[in-house]
Amino acid sequence: MTELAQPVTMDKIVSLCRRRGFVFPSSEIYGGLGSTYDYGHYGVLMKNNIRSLWFQAMVQERDDIVALDSAVILNPRVWEASGHVAEFTDPLVDCRTCKLRFRADKLEDAQCGRKPSKHPGEFKECDLTEARQFNLMFETHVGALKDESSLAYLRPETAQGIFINFKNVLQIARRKPPFGIAQVGKSFRNEITPGNFLFRVREFELMEMEFFVPPGEAEQWYGYWIDQRFGWYLKYGVREGNLRKREHTAEERSHYSSGTTDIEFLYPIGWSELEGVANRGDYDLTQHTRHSGTKLEYVGEGGERYTPYVIEPAVSIERIFVALLVDAYHEEVVAERERTVLRLHPAVAPVKAAILPLISKNDEMVNRARALHEDLRQGQIVEYDDGGAIGRRYRRQDEIGTPFAFTVDEQTLEDDTVTVRDRDSLAQERLPIGGVRAWLDDALERPWQAPKI
Amino acid sequence: MTELAQPVTMDKIVSLCRRRGFVFPSSEIYGGLGSTYDYGHYGVLMKNNIRSLWFQAMVQERDDIVALDSAVILNPRVWEASGHVAEFTDPLVDCRTCKLRFRADKLEDAQCGRKPSKHPGEFKECDLTEARQFNLMFETHVGALKDESSLAYLRPETAQGIFINFKNVLQIARRKPPFGIAQVGKSFRNEITPGNFLFRVREFELMEMEFFVPPGEAEQWYGYWIDQRFGWYLKYGVREGNLRKREHTAEERSHYSSGTTDIEFLYPIGWSELEGVANRGDYDLTQHTRHSGTKLEYVGEGGERYTPYVIEPAVSIERIFVALLVDAYHEEVVAERERTVLRLHPAVAPVKAAILPLISKNDEMVNRARALHEDLRQGQIVEYDDGGAIGRRYRRQDEIGTPFAFTVDEQTLEDDTVTVRDRDSLAQERLPIGGVRAWLDDALERPWQAPKI
Repeated sequence: MTELAQPVTMDKIVSLCRRRGFVFPSSEIYGGLGSTYDYGHYGVLMKNNIRSLWFQAMVQERDDIVALDSAVILNPRVWEASGHVAEFTDPLVDCRTCKLRFRADKLEDAQCGRKPSKHPGEFKECDLTEARQFNLMFETHVGALKDESSLAYLRPETAQGIFINFKNVLQIARRKPPFGIAQVGKSFRNEITPGNFLFRVREFELMEMEFFVPPGEAEQWYGYWIDQRFGWYLKYGVREGNLRKREHTAEERSHYSSGTTDIEFLYPIGWSELEGVANRGDYDLTQHTRHSGTKLEYVGEGGERYTPYVIEPAVSIERIFVALLVDAYHEEVVAERERTVLRLHPAVAPVKAAILPLISKNDEMVNRARALHEDLRQGQIVEYDDGGAIGRRYRRQDEIGTPFAFTVDEQTLEDDTVTVRDRDSLAQERLPIGGVRAWLDDALERPWQAPKI
Repeated sequence: MTELAQPVTMDKIVSLCRRRGFVFPSSEIYGGLGSTYDYGHYGVLMKNNIRSLWFQAMVQERDDIVALDSAVILNPRVWEASGHVAEFTDPLVDCRTCKLRFRADKLEDAQCGRKPSKHPGEFKECDLTEARQFNLMFETHVGALKDESSLAYLRPETAQGIFINFKNVLQIARRKPPFGIAQVGKSFRNEITPGNFLFRVREFELMEMEFFVPPGEAEQWYGYWIDQRFGWYLKYGVREGNLRKREHTAEERSHYSSGTTDIEFLYPIGWSELEGVANRGDYDLTQHTRHSGTKLEYVGEGGERYTPYVIEPAVSIERIFVALLVDAYHEEVVAERERTVLRLHPAVAPVKAAILPLISKNDEMVNRARALHEDLRQGQIVEYDDGGAIGRRYRRQDEIGTPFAFTVDEQTLEDDTVTVRDRDSLAQERLPIGGVRAWLDDALERPWQAPKI
């Protein structure tokens, strides 16, 4: 095997996503809608896996975290209290000449629309306005009137939905700090300069967990969650060399944060935030207590009371999706033929196994393969394929990252065994057809390591 | 066992949901936001189950349906083409006296805000305006400008995201009719009169599947999907007597429909739509072909070409959620004590099993129970509970619908067996502790029938 074309470019990822139906530019037949994407079949399956694995690690396998799913459109006072109405802004400048709009704090990456310079950040022809603050929350109106009284926002994060339910969970789920509330859900930001494929989009699926702790334990839990989340990425196939921790400077931090560490990934566009772990202190609970008049604090059985500090790991499915694809993407030469393969962790792979009759026109093989497929799909997402030469079918499965392929061949008809082909090593072995389901369940449970290239 | 309090009222469902943390009124600390709800831990788990079971039946276990996940904010021309900008409206009247707003087509259920009559629909004091058409799509603006050029809509359904991707799926997923595209996602409708708990809310999670068929097969597939979906509800615990099919009259049908059958459920508010199955004909693909200039048709290998007809089963998770709770809810007297129990299908139940030490202060029992819990949660959502008397803990699990409880007692410490208690029959048997995981997996796979009351 010879490895080609590393490091991978974003273009290669975009192209594979399009070609194999992971991701399409949205509304394409109407000329699209800037930086909006629709997910095809394999994209949906892979996002489902990412969501489940996060939920499994955050909720299912723990005693101290419960789930929540709050509304996208909350009472607008939530966003006044949280500081988003006043402070969730980016500075924006317009160019009077080329009519483009830029983030004032990112001019060094920008280009004039009329006379782009070879050097981004040079604006020879541009006539830039003064910077003004632009709020990133999408606005809408609830009810039939369109005025101040009906103004509402699409949530830019799920976290506030958690804070306003703090008391509900405390009472009903009988929790005491340290405990967490986890939420996955669509969030919306009216970004001035979206781009870089799925990296910065206007709607995205956030996975956030707010962990409430006694103030004195905040530093310790902050470190704990940075390490937990870092380890989660390694477990699911992100390469250690492409992952690092970076602490925000005081200037970088959001208005609510008293400490933030990004888990950064080496995207094709350079080191960038994958997940952020923030120490939000008591900022949010204090703000909501002040604005709502409802005391959001913990009162112990002994009468001790305090406002918990909050540690928050927050990440979007989209950024994980891209990171996993980047590290899984390989082009290589095998037996003098090129192949593209996604070496995804089996738990992340959209399809767990392909079931293939060696010869598509052999009815017996087709029937045996279909019966095997029927059995396996009771438990797993698997795919039957009899279209085209076997080599082409293997390549297609390699490109979507299917870890195993079971092939029904001549010998199957004689001795009831099938071959199983391993996506990464290309090794083939024979298995009794009756044992395939158990073998697959077992293979998917085994700890997995990205093959060394 | 004596059954109490049938039929169940909506108030009882709302109260249980609140008390046990399934559903909270949203933004409560800020006085709420009309008819908006947040889901607590058990609500999230139950919604996850409903979503997975739908996806399993629609995608995983079939060859002919693929998944899609399109954006909430699409190019606004999509909604012009679909007819939603012009026709997705409700007629609205205002009362000049009491300042309330009503749906003109639902006045018979309405009440004056100043002098409510004993008879809904009587408006002695009201001074009603003429009806005007009110569009139910939420509006927003994408980008920094707020004008016609940036106007966009929050999707009121997911179906249009499917139609505009028809060609992508045809090409890339190598499909030919009959085939379907399934999507689950948040949708938004600016309802004039939301209400009845989760039954009519402004944001909800739709599960829609568009099934593309040769025009001559449309009637047959229309019938097929009505039956499939009807059967799905019976399988997961809806009582046959509470479920019926009702065909829309020509006046009732939506602008795109050439035939719609509702699967209705006997909610506490009366027979109402649970799921709709519509024959959308070639309306949508034709409209998008006309508006986009992209031909959305099927071209066969032999050169035959046609615009497929579309059969659409569409339902919200919220309506299923309520229907399943209503049919699962029971109050009964057992051994002279009242209990409330949710007889949910085990696949729907938020928690699959509780693990309980009989005596919470016995360290040995606690340790054995914790170890069992640790083992079981690798594969299932289970819950450990050592808070309070065993009877109270059983009642708590009954109220959230946990089908099985494993209890570690004195005998466990002697012979390594635990009791398993069945939620419905209350029968208890003993199992070797080492066999519990396999027993549970097995029990959750067994076909299930609602116990006869």
